[in-house]
Amino acid sequence: MSELKNDLLLRALMRQPVSRTPAWMMRQAGRYLPEYRATRAEAGDFMSLCRNADLACEVTLQPLRRYAFDAAILFSDILTVPDAMGLGLYFSAGEGPRFERRIERAADVEKLPVPDVEDTLGYVTNAVRTIRGALEGSVPLIGFAGSPWTVATYMVEGGSSKNYENIKGLLYSDPKAADALIAKLATVTTNYLNAQIRAGAQAVMVFDTWGSVLEPEAYRRFSLSGMQAIVDGLIRHHDGRDVPVVLFTKGAGTRLNIMSETGCDALGVDWTTDLAEAREITGDRVALQGNMDPSLLYASDDAIRAGVKRVLDSYGDGPGHVFNLGHGIHPEIDPSKVGVMVDTVREYSPRFHSPG
Amino acid sequence: MSELKNDLLLRALMRQPVSRTPAWMMRQAGRYLPEYRATRAEAGDFMSLCRNADLACEVTLQPLRRYAFDAAILFSDILTVPDAMGLGLYFSAGEGPRFERRIERAADVEKLPVPDVEDTLGYVTNAVRTIRGALEGSVPLIGFAGSPWTVATYMVEGGSSKNYENIKGLLYSDPKAADALIAKLATVTTNYLNAQIRAGAQAVMVFDTWGSVLEPEAYRRFSLSGMQAIVDGLIRHHDGRDVPVVLFTKGAGTRLNIMSETGCDALGVDWTTDLAEAREITGDRVALQGNMDPSLLYASDDAIRAGVKRVLDSYGDGPGHVFNLGHGIHPEIDPSKVGVMVDTVREYSPRFHSPG
Repeated sequence: MSELKNDLLLRALMRQPVSRTPAWMMRQAGRYLPEYRATRAEAGDFMSLCRNADLACEVTLQPLRRYAFDAAILFSDILTVPDAMGLGLYFSAGEGPRFERRIERAADVEKLPVPDVEDTLGYVTNAVRTIRGALEGSVPLIGFAGSPWTVATYMVEGGSSKNYENIKGLLYSDPKAADALIAKLATVTTNYLNAQIRAGAQAVMVFDTWGSVLEPEAYRRFSLSGMQAIVDGLIRHHDGRDVPVVLFTKGAGTRLNIMSETGCDALGVDWTTDLAEAREITGDRVALQGNMDPSLLYASDDAIRAGVKRVLDSYGDGPGHVFNLGHGIHPEIDPSKVGVMVDTVREYSPRFHSPG
Repeated sequence: MSELKNDLLLRALMRQPVSRTPAWMMRQAGRYLPEYRATRAEAGDFMSLCRNADLACEVTLQPLRRYAFDAAILFSDILTVPDAMGLGLYFSAGEGPRFERRIERAADVEKLPVPDVEDTLGYVTNAVRTIRGALEGSVPLIGFAGSPWTVATYMVEGGSSKNYENIKGLLYSDPKAADALIAKLATVTTNYLNAQIRAGAQAVMVFDTWGSVLEPEAYRRFSLSGMQAIVDGLIRHHDGRDVPVVLFTKGAGTRLNIMSETGCDALGVDWTTDLAEAREITGDRVALQGNMDPSLLYASDDAIRAGVKRVLDSYGDGPGHVFNLGHGIHPEIDPSKVGVMVDTVREYSPRFHSPG
């Protein structure tokens, strides 16, 4: 593979010195881009786009043609894992993701297979290889998966949920069944992320979108435990470099503290915690990635510039910061706003780093 | 008016000694009760139910006939305030609340009237008087309003929102217009709550449902500031008793600290912060109300009993705790589950209080 020309992301995630703060954006390959919508239409449905390595590569690269991002992120979905475990993922118009079969009780968890990753998710590792080839070493490629807890919510609810009726009914009434589901998902997810790393992913991120709907004790038992098992089982060095691991619980707040003790390299932070406070909470044990309010991109260019500066000021001096939004970009955003954001990070961030 | 027979709630909110922990439940008059659904059907639409003092009184009292709650809460809606300001509230099936006119820019804010409360919201104070009469001093009546920020989100979005596109566009691009809107809403809301107090509300609560979607600096400027103005302007002693003020920002986390410094008497806490941690964060300056995960009511009776005990254990010894859910009860809950919860609070809580 080509030598990596821009390793700012990998260095920042390992808290090594950099000349400026690297930037990428959650959901950077997504619906806000007209070229994404065109490729998606060409593919047919969402999963066909994920399954086609050339088209998945195309949408992964699209934002890099427009913006000076310092990383690419694999185009895929967190629900490929339960699909590989036989639940039958489909997307119904207006309703989001659905499963043909859902997990209801302990017996269903026991019957769930631990699938062979190459057999069932080879389309993802194919996409990783294709994207790595196409990137030609310009920027690193981030692989990802959902956290066991977040993926479990979809498996037990049968799709998206508002009140988490079924999964909370299960975890409060039969916590051992929930433990078993999280453990099984952690195993499959670890294998899946390791396969992505072997195929060429240079950093990996675990998305725990729904961890914050749990009370603190339940968070430790059902969300953090799954991420801890993944951190413990991941390949941390590959192809001559460290492979940084990023955990992201949306709305983590003070839970950033226990997250930082898992042995991960970095934490994603949403916009509801200042990065200065997040550095305090985590005792600078890990790098931080974030955290501009994605809804700031609805505002004026000047407001966006001011918002970017607030985020960079809040982290302050020193290595260990990767600029990002605090959550995925909203689909209605005007693409020109993203350019304003990325350019401001480039212009304003060098002051926080010592000249190499 | 009749003398108050059960003042546990008022005493606990003022951090005075009690014999057991009082309990009530957000949305206790609501769709989970078949008798509520029947009265709602009789009234026609939701606002007709709010506007009819007898029917609003009926649904307020319904949960007290079933459960040993220690408080009644006025049946109304946080959006009566912008309706009184001329925005034209209506409820469309499946879409939730909507406004005929929305606030888009500074000029719209300037034009917004500060209405006379008795002229425009007399139906609410009527309901308060009717309910106080019907309660015959059995338990205290809680009045409430939405926080200026939370109400503003609906006024600027024109209804419910997912990403807060318009209000965040406004506050980031023209923060002074957002300041003006919050200030005007704080004035109207203060007048409105004072009118409820004069009509007989014995405690008041401000619901800041959407404060946690703001970054910390914006939270202080646009959410906390409005609640601070309300706390500063409220009648704090009426009819021979203190009138406790409760503030509730869902997902407040560490923001409980600055909330506790407003001079309010108590804070609502959702289930994502342990009450032990909340006591630490707030330095025991205020009483705490909460915080069982409402989704625990989907679980088994034994799991509910264990959950109630966890909440009471977490607060621990001493006065200053009001048991509640961490958010409103979900409409699908089996009413018998609420009985299990309330009975467990009664049985288990005396151990945390010194015998009077």
